[in-house]
Amino acid sequence: MLPSMGEPTQKATAERILDAAEALFAKRGYDGTSLADVTDRVGIRGPSLYNHFKNKRELYTAMLARRLDPFFELLDNLVATPPSAARSQDSLESMLRHHVAHPNLARLIQHAALAEGDQLELLIERWYRPFFERVGKLFPELTSVSDAQAADAAAVIMGFNNMILGYVTLAPLHGRLLDLDFSKERTVESYLRFLTKP
Amino acid sequence: MLPSMGEPTQKATAERILDAAEALFAKRGYDGTSLADVTDRVGIRGPSLYNHFKNKRELYTAMLARRLDPFFELLDNLVATPPSAARSQDSLESMLRHHVAHPNLARLIQHAALAEGDQLELLIERWYRPFFERVGKLFPELTSVSDAQAADAAAVIMGFNNMILGYVTLAPLHGRLLDLDFSKERTVESYLRFLTKP
Repeated sequence: MLPSMGEPTQKATAERILDAAEALFAKRGYDGTSLADVTDRVGIRGPSLYNHFKNKRELYTAMLARRLDPFFELLDNLVATPPSAARSQDSLESMLRHHVAHPNLARLIQHAALAEGDQLELLIERWYRPFFERVGKLFPELTSVSDAQAADAAAVIMGFNNMILGYVTLAPLHGRLLDLDFSKERTVESYLRFLTKP
Repeated sequence: MLPSMGEPTQKATAERILDAAEALFAKRGYDGTSLADVTDRVGIRGPSLYNHFKNKRELYTAMLARRLDPFFELLDNLVATPPSAARSQDSLESMLRHHVAHPNLARLIQHAALAEGDQLELLIERWYRPFFERVGKLFPELTSVSDAQAADAAAVIMGFNNMILGYVTLAPLHGRLLDLDFSKERTVESYLRFLTKP
């Protein structure tokens, strides 16, 4: 086969840039990563990157969109089925498995929360607010509460989000300490039992 | 009063360096923080820092020791009381409140886990392994398990650690999203109810 030219090669380069950016932003955070780090990792020169992404912020946004937009499709599918205890369990399992399959996503979210910069604002306004609307539909018991119960409902949301994101972001600590691999099916299943126990 | 000279001033400077280092390492991580960042924040010149700390690693270690060593005293005191359901609840409450009182500690641990560098090794070998031995004594039901139950016990340990650390490290996200302040007593109490529910 002849090497393909034009559009297909462009697409491949954009994907490789997104892959490199995701790995670097997930490890070092937004401020700890330069566009030169990204192009070095991809093995291209700087100007090639600008053919695909106008600047660092646009690259960061595109990289998040690639991982977070499918997350919403997943939640929308769950919301479309009738509420039940089984659906609530399935929702937690789907969310955890999505993060296990794409572990950089939780790391990126955690980095943004720690840095408290513009990246956190972007994450909240574009993804997390609509995400939490869906979560509210999946767990209606959390939204139909009085003011007096609102703090308790918020505690439940925080607790589950902490358990799901922390499963990935603290995996390097827990893995060495407890001698386990967070991505192994047996580890995931035990964690799911803990997460979904009534 | 005359300004004090010698030892007291030296101590004050060391404390100020540790405060600045803690705030910077907690926000940007180890690799994202330079000694020049620290001295700039304290308002001293570089050589003054070396009077107190030999290098960046020594500063990082001293800063962790200041926050983590007291954590062990707290756990040792709990271990010294007889096991009971109330003690288990008190343990979780003490751990959460220690992190709320010193929120940079959870941020530092999370940064080390994300970077997966030498700082994580230091944290695990010097503090987290002995810390988990104490946790095992506080929750004997987690250690007296068969091999078949080991993955489930690990899941419980991970789950609670994720809930406690995440309460602080994801606070900027949850705070804006749910309109709450993680350090307010009402928020802490609701979260403790969730954490300690049977």
